[in-house]
Amino acid sequence: MDMHASLRELLGAVQNGELDIEAGIARLRDLPYLEMGHTKIDLHRPLRNGFPEVVYAAGKTPGQVVDIFSHLRGRGPVLATRVAEETAAAVLAACPGARHNPLGRTLTLGEDDVVYAEGEIGVITAGTSDLPVAEEALTTCRMFGHRAFLVADVGVAGLHRLLDRMAVLRRARALIVVAGMEGALASVVGGLVSQPVVAVPTSVGYGAALAGFTALCGMLTSCASGVTVVNIDNGFGAACAACRINNQVNAAAAKE
Amino acid sequence: MDMHASLRELLGAVQNGELDIEAGIARLRDLPYLEMGHTKIDLHRPLRNGFPEVVYAAGKTPGQVVDIFSHLRGRGPVLATRVAEETAAAVLAACPGARHNPLGRTLTLGEDDVVYAEGEIGVITAGTSDLPVAEEALTTCRMFGHRAFLVADVGVAGLHRLLDRMAVLRRARALIVVAGMEGALASVVGGLVSQPVVAVPTSVGYGAALAGFTALCGMLTSCASGVTVVNIDNGFGAACAACRINNQVNAAAAKE
Amino acid sequence: MDMHASLRELLGAVQNGELDIEAGIARLRDLPYLEMGHTKIDLHRPLRNGFPEVVYAAGKTPGQVVDIFSHLRGRGPVLATRVAEETAAAVLAACPGARHNPLGRTLTLGEDDVVYAEGEIGVITAGTSDLPVAEEALTTCRMFGHRAFLVADVGVAGLHRLLDRMAVLRRARALIVVAGMEGALASVVGGLVSQPVVAVPTSVGYGAALAGFTALCGMLTSCASGVTVVNIDNGFGAACAACRINNQVNAAAAKE
Amino acid sequence: MDMHASLRELLGAVQNGELDIEAGIARLRDLPYLEMGHTKIDLHRPLRNGFPEVVYAAGKTPGQVVDIFSHLRGRGPVLATRVAEETAAAVLAACPGARHNPLGRTLTLGEDDVVYAEGEIGVITAGTSDLPVAEEALTTCRMFGHRAFLVADVGVAGLHRLLDRMAVLRRARALIVVAGMEGALASVVGGLVSQPVVAVPTSVGYGAALAGFTALCGMLTSCASGVTVVNIDNGFGAACAACRINNQVNAAAAKE
Amino acid sequence: MDMHASLRELLGAVQNGELDIEAGIARLRDLPYLEMGHTKIDLHRPLRNGFPEVVYAAGKTPGQVVDIFSHLRGRGPVLATRVAEETAAAVLAACPGARHNPLGRTLTLGEDDVVYAEGEIGVITAGTSDLPVAEEALTTCRMFGHRAFLVADVGVAGLHRLLDRMAVLRRARALIVVAGMEGALASVVGGLVSQPVVAVPTSVGYGAALAGFTALCGMLTSCASGVTVVNIDNGFGAACAACRINNQVNAAAAKE
Amino acid sequence: MDMHASLRELLGAVQNGELDIEAGIARLRDLPYLEMGHTKIDLHRPLRNGFPEVVYAAGKTPGQVVDIFSHLRGRGPVLATRVAEETAAAVLAACPGARHNPLGRTLTLGEDDVVYAEGEIGVITAGTSDLPVAEEALTTCRMFGHRAFLVADVGVAGLHRLLDRMAVLRRARALIVVAGMEGALASVVGGLVSQPVVAVPTSVGYGAALAGFTALCGMLTSCASGVTVVNIDNGFGAACAACRINNQVNAAAAKE
Amino acid sequence: MDMHASLRELLGAVQNGELDIEAGIARLRDLPYLEMGHTKIDLHRPLRNGFPEVVYAAGKTPGQVVDIFSHLRGRGPVLATRVAEETAAAVLAACPGARHNPLGRTLTLGEDDVVYAEGEIGVITAGTSDLPVAEEALTTCRMFGHRAFLVADVGVAGLHRLLDRMAVLRRARALIVVAGMEGALASVVGGLVSQPVVAVPTSVGYGAALAGFTALCGMLTSCASGVTVVNIDNGFGAACAACRINNQVNAAAAKE
Amino acid sequence: MDMHASLRELLGAVQNGELDIEAGIARLRDLPYLEMGHTKIDLHRPLRNGFPEVVYAAGKTPGQVVDIFSHLRGRGPVLATRVAEETAAAVLAACPGARHNPLGRTLTLGEDDVVYAEGEIGVITAGTSDLPVAEEALTTCRMFGHRAFLVADVGVAGLHRLLDRMAVLRRARALIVVAGMEGALASVVGGLVSQPVVAVPTSVGYGAALAGFTALCGMLTSCASGVTVVNIDNGFGAACAACRINNQVNAAAAKE
Repeated sequence: MDMHASLRELLGAVQNGELDIEAGIARLRDLPYLEMGHTKIDLHRPLRNGFPEVVYAAGKTPGQVVDIFSHLRGRGPVLATRVAEETAAAVLAACPGARHNPLGRTLTLGEDDVVYAEGEIGVITAGTSDLPVAEEALTTCRMFGHRAFLVADVGVAGLHRLLDRMAVLRRARALIVVAGMEGALASVVGGLVSQPVVAVPTSVGYGAALAGFTALCGMLTSCASGVTVVNIDNGFGAACAACRINNQVNAAAAKE
Repeated sequence: MDMHASLRELLGAVQNGELDIEAGIARLRDLPYLEMGHTKIDLHRPLRNGFPEVVYAAGKTPGQVVDIFSHLRGRGPVLATRVAEETAAAVLAACPGARHNPLGRTLTLGEDDVVYAEGEIGVITAGTSDLPVAEEALTTCRMFGHRAFLVADVGVAGLHRLLDRMAVLRRARALIVVAGMEGALASVVGGLVSQPVVAVPTSVGYGAALAGFTALCGMLTSCASGVTVVNIDNGFGAACAACRINNQVNAAAAKE
Repeated sequence: MDMHASLRELLGAVQNGELDIEAGIARLRDLPYLEMGHTKIDLHRPLRNGFPEVVYAAGKTPGQVVDIFSHLRGRGPVLATRVAEETAAAVLAACPGARHNPLGRTLTLGEDDVVYAEGEIGVITAGTSDLPVAEEALTTCRMFGHRAFLVADVGVAGLHRLLDRMAVLRRARALIVVAGMEGALASVVGGLVSQPVVAVPTSVGYGAALAGFTALCGMLTSCASGVTVVNIDNGFGAACAACRINNQVNAAAAKE
Repeated sequence: MDMHASLRELLGAVQNGELDIEAGIARLRDLPYLEMGHTKIDLHRPLRNGFPEVVYAAGKTPGQVVDIFSHLRGRGPVLATRVAEETAAAVLAACPGARHNPLGRTLTLGEDDVVYAEGEIGVITAGTSDLPVAEEALTTCRMFGHRAFLVADVGVAGLHRLLDRMAVLRRARALIVVAGMEGALASVVGGLVSQPVVAVPTSVGYGAALAGFTALCGMLTSCASGVTVVNIDNGFGAACAACRINNQVNAAAAKE
Repeated sequence: MDMHASLRELLGAVQNGELDIEAGIARLRDLPYLEMGHTKIDLHRPLRNGFPEVVYAAGKTPGQVVDIFSHLRGRGPVLATRVAEETAAAVLAACPGARHNPLGRTLTLGEDDVVYAEGEIGVITAGTSDLPVAEEALTTCRMFGHRAFLVADVGVAGLHRLLDRMAVLRRARALIVVAGMEGALASVVGGLVSQPVVAVPTSVGYGAALAGFTALCGMLTSCASGVTVVNIDNGFGAACAACRINNQVNAAAAKE
Repeated sequence: MDMHASLRELLGAVQNGELDIEAGIARLRDLPYLEMGHTKIDLHRPLRNGFPEVVYAAGKTPGQVVDIFSHLRGRGPVLATRVAEETAAAVLAACPGARHNPLGRTLTLGEDDVVYAEGEIGVITAGTSDLPVAEEALTTCRMFGHRAFLVADVGVAGLHRLLDRMAVLRRARALIVVAGMEGALASVVGGLVSQPVVAVPTSVGYGAALAGFTALCGMLTSCASGVTVVNIDNGFGAACAACRINNQVNAAAAKE
Repeated sequence: MDMHASLRELLGAVQNGELDIEAGIARLRDLPYLEMGHTKIDLHRPLRNGFPEVVYAAGKTPGQVVDIFSHLRGRGPVLATRVAEETAAAVLAACPGARHNPLGRTLTLGEDDVVYAEGEIGVITAGTSDLPVAEEALTTCRMFGHRAFLVADVGVAGLHRLLDRMAVLRRARALIVVAGMEGALASVVGGLVSQPVVAVPTSVGYGAALAGFTALCGMLTSCASGVTVVNIDNGFGAACAACRINNQVNAAAAKE
Repeated sequence: MDMHASLRELLGAVQNGELDIEAGIARLRDLPYLEMGHTKIDLHRPLRNGFPEVVYAAGKTPGQVVDIFSHLRGRGPVLATRVAEETAAAVLAACPGARHNPLGRTLTLGEDDVVYAEGEIGVITAGTSDLPVAEEALTTCRMFGHRAFLVADVGVAGLHRLLDRMAVLRRARALIVVAGMEGALASVVGGLVSQPVVAVPTSVGYGAALAGFTALCGMLTSCASGVTVVNIDNGFGAACAACRINNQVNAAAAKE
């Protein structure tokens, strides 16, 4: 609609002679790119209230992340993922109000500006070692404006613990399953629930666990149909997918 | 609730003495397994009207598939995927009413019994060579009771063709993106829409396309956050995931 | 000790002059090798009644396999694995009494000479497509003198079917689990039973199933501890391992 | 039978009116899961005397492992594997009585409560560099209640050293072969003995040793039939498999 | 400029009142996508005289390729690559004037309409087995309007044959080096000439040749700096890259 | 022609008796090797003014790099790539005038002696994390005598930023595209421009990014034809390729 | 020295005016390349009597191989490897005197012209399935003028068979060990003999045998030091290496 | 024949009553194993003067290596490879007379006891970064009693440097070629010389160099026939292979 307004203004200027045709052409040639860019980065950097700017901190120097945080500060919620200890310390020193989740390796700013949508997202982990990835997912969901809960340490080595939590899990509109090693938890959860299931393989394990690729490939070939998968250790991406689903549910409800 | 009714009946029989305790134990020991089995196979073989039995025909002999179709016939819709020509011919000969989609390699039975839910699923392909996988997805959506439409041949080599179809794509509650080679279409679509996007890498390409693994890994590392991925060429699985999402939307709407 | 007796006899012959030193040297040079060779091939070609000669037919021409069968005929049970149709036809034509299992791709000769040991071995398959590997395992167990039974098509997509068969499975002294795709059945069975479990990944599946390597690696990283694994599609090897276990049980029982 | 008693009690309460039907339904829905869970975790956390709780310490923080040890203390034997130096120090400081095996990277608690079963398990290593994995296996066997002995440094570069120890090896009911590089020791041992052989590839070697995958694949394709394999460096899993075998032998002996 | 004209016309219509602002907005929203699409497909399907339409025939049915050729016929030069024998026969039957290069697996139409640019492109092969890829490159260069010559069978096993042809090679503005196995020819040529070198690894070889990946990786790590690489067997892509270079040379010359 | 002059001089000296035949043989025996060597190392170590000596510092000790710099000093421009911090410090201490680019990990000497050719090379990065590779490319271009500019952080997550810079990009005679993760920027740029495009995959990303191999393979299978690829993180090689192209343009212009 | 003579002649011609300077330059530019080329192809196409021309027939059409044989005929011994049945039939029809070894897939011409050198080469195979590779090696040795003998089917499953043949093996000046699966035979032979051992992994096996890569990597990491390895199934290359060794022995003997 | 003498002595002692039968049995049981062991470890730990004990120090603690050196001291030459700095310091402190080559990561003891055989071995490196592997090879050759020389930094980027050294290279009885990246030096040397060539791929390079696997596979598929290959960075193994060859030459010369 921003685009709509811009176009209206521009065409009005042509219509009333404020802008001649050649100048109008020049500005129009750029406009759609901007619009397209806006659409493109809508997921990452929307201008709407309460949505976060996202910074992928891996491969950036502490100084670069501090610069980004300082630049974005006051422009709404900010989320940084894959934040090294050293980077976190630098940002915390430079940006009062920033919060660090060392387990999930996230930095956040402006959490209090987040407005929560309807519906919940459930995050399930197979074991204690999968918690960092789950924490990244939980923080991401919340910074994107979705309530999220954690059901931890319910791997198939303790299946009853999972089954005991089925009532809680059924409350969620989408489930994120975080598991390493052979990743069988995704198949088990996928078979027990009817909601959308986003599986996150983790790099937990050694040898034939192949740094998460065995869980990744196992989840991709799950016999429980309809399980989808994101990159190894990508709690952020799984959260984004779950947020898209919950947004879709809320959008459909809003249309009714 | 089926389970709930069964338990109520059984406990009532114990309470009123129709069933003694040892017999009750015997039946209860089996019940949860059955129930669990039901939950487990709910996606594949639900007892509710209009949901299909699903047969994965690869690795099964024509005779085995004919047996399964003959056995399931009259028990509601049936869908077989990965059906070889020889198997299709054998089933068509043995099961009048079965239909064969040679491009999507599916066999279906009882299509007319399918009852369609609210909402549409969009299937997008990068190129002509991706059509078999898209056809598998389309047929699966429909046999599971969801309307689905195809936007074909809109790969990034002809990006305007995709952009021309944005209005159609925005109609869908979930999008399935089918692409081989470097699989960039998933990132582009993921950046342009806000709906859930399920990416299906295809084995189209050669050499460094790695039989679909380059598209698979590219989709898993997409810079458009929130894209989820299924196995290479797995149109069936992507459809199941999209159906889960649309079911969730409809379930939430039903609760309101 | 066989070796001990041989050495005593030989040295006695030298001591009492029956054997001169050079002849003693000649025999001694061969003795350990022969002994070692005997021990070495004990598993494959034992001289004891009822144990089979084993022929790995893949990569051998039909003529070579016919030659081997003709040569071994009348020297006790013979088992050939990985037998192509063409080879099977050639052997059946040349060796009356040979039997062909086309599903398990085995050829056998002298089955009636097999003497069965105490104890049973259970073979479990996830799906219909895993049956060829299971058949190879069953035939191998039987030709090695061990009773074996099949529990087929109890993959985690129909978990209740597995749970219904637990009483049968508990009868076995060792279990062979045959599964493709993500191979989760091995973890589930491994968690439900206390017997030794030998997992056989199969090449069933496509894409990220990696021709059996995902199941292989998943089984190797199973969270159900104590599951051991053999090569992809290696029903023969799994059967050999199970036979070693049952032989050990019987040997221990014999000592008591 | 625990389950049997629970069900009897619950049904009795329904029969005599202590429990109404809805409450009975609620409790029954959970019960089988608990039972199934118990069966599931039987291998890891059995309630029977002398069996250890097992903690996989890799990927857990020192604090998490200290918490688990503190929680489990006094509840029978406890075994932690893959324990980093830092974690070991923290647990030793927090839990008097805990013991650390730095070579095998294990922590143990309550070793004196272990009751040993009949039969021995033999652990064989190719070289000095394989000792950490062997130590993990030995400690695991002992914590699970099985006597185990070590035959070290008998790789095929010193074959006579292996052959000199054959009498000792034949004493074992199951053999664990630990070897890196090309892993040929598993084939050699597998050819020389008739007992069950569990092969553990190690990550010893460089370049084409592929961090243990060459040994892993070599052991999986061993020409000595009936050798089974566990994950790279997985001394714990090999020990669990050997314990399953010895338990089976003892169980069969107990039935006679 | 097409775009420029369109915009001028549209803005003129707004200025003179033929089009109201909302209608102008609607049309403008689509226009840039078209323009962008034109730019996007400029390489593949340019509207300028003499440039070919390109069809990647692998994965398309003979019928689909016939349809495309029939549709494109009379619309300028057409090039199809990766054409199976069966497809070629179908197209030749349906499209008089089409030509088939069975070695290069290409189909062409309208070759006589091609207008050649200044400058030559040299294609070099290591061995006879690399000829199909070289032929694909040669035909592609020519259909794109660039003269190209072949220097065949000058692999490092016959280095003098290469060195004898240096004068010819120096004539080219860009060189395409086609080689399989270890792909060393790219390093040798890259070290002997100063022109741009595009290396095409081929799938010639077996075992450690890894279906072309050894040549691919060897070319990517060539010690002759400035060698660039395209996909395995991708003669078409190498030709496109060389054409881009020659076009750039001609464009710079045209500016002078 | 340098060679031509050398030969003319040498043969003239023989002809006029300044050089006897044996001395001529001695010099000629070296000349071709030298010439060939010169041609071979022409890209790396040309004798012409302003061209750099190149040192690949990875795997060399600080002392070795200091030795090389000390030896080459005063012999024209010198460029070292992949320079560790420790090595840079050692060279800066030993060679006054050397400059260190810590982001691009380069060391340079004699930059002021560089003479710039006509034409510009454009370097484009997808994200901040790709900057080190881009810096290596920029420094290399400049030390080889080519002007180069940077367009940074224009990944497909912010496509409008790329499109805003199209006019700048079209100025370049060759484009270097630096991107990690799925590497889609190479396809997008390749589709938008007609110049030669050299793609550099970077090791930015994790899990399925495969340390740069997903970007590498994605770029190799790009649907934008004519994109060529260099090794992962190889900014130096991409620059060399772009310099070859610009040299070719200038050479062709010089001939006119 | 040939080169020396050529240069002397050429310079003499310039000195005495027979050759002008420009013509001298032209010839000198080629001379070293020719010399180098001669040295280069000495191994493949030596001019000495009795050495074979070698044709790698894989990837060549029957017509191409017929052309090569027709062209080479009468120019001494010719050896073609990797010859398909169809190609062999075509050559046999076109070239009387050619001989086909269908097991080793070789074609030979002019065998009677071969002159044999001193010394023998031994070829050892693990199993019957390795014979094709061994036959290729044997034929190659003989066509290169070296006597060779075969010790077949002495894999570690029948170690005594190998040990029984040690006296024969010790006769050889170099040993070629041909084995698939885990390739342990190379380590065993390497440990038992002191001669040079060239190991040839074969593609015999399935699953984790990885089409020969497990044997390849196992042989490369053999604990028997000093074993060298050639490509999978490369009997030809192993023979060439063994011939180089025997030639070296004979050359050293000739010098004494 | 050593064995022959031992057996003759032992049997003579039995015959003349010096040794009774049981004692003879005890010694004979060990003898073949010892003999076999001797043969087996002959390469590593021969008893003959001047041959080294070899210790693979990777994966061994400093204490273990110190123990081994202390134990072996005074028992002839000792060579340790892959020695970490920390281990070297510990051994140097504990074993006066030990020498450390930090570049080649070797420790040696008793070098002065080495007796050199006839003939030389040449070691060639492509670049400075390959020197550590070359140093390991040189030290190994010398400790095994073979003279060895180094031709360093003659990679194909400076081919003339290699060609200038051909006379030196032709002096060697066997050549070891050490190269990383694409490993083309092995093909070039293999094409220029007729001696046996042992290629050692090194892990020099990055990205597509695949930690040495590209060089490894390139060397295995070298078009210069008869090149054999050892493991990545395995200078020790290449030296052992070259020593086997030179020993064979000397042995053949000794027989004449």
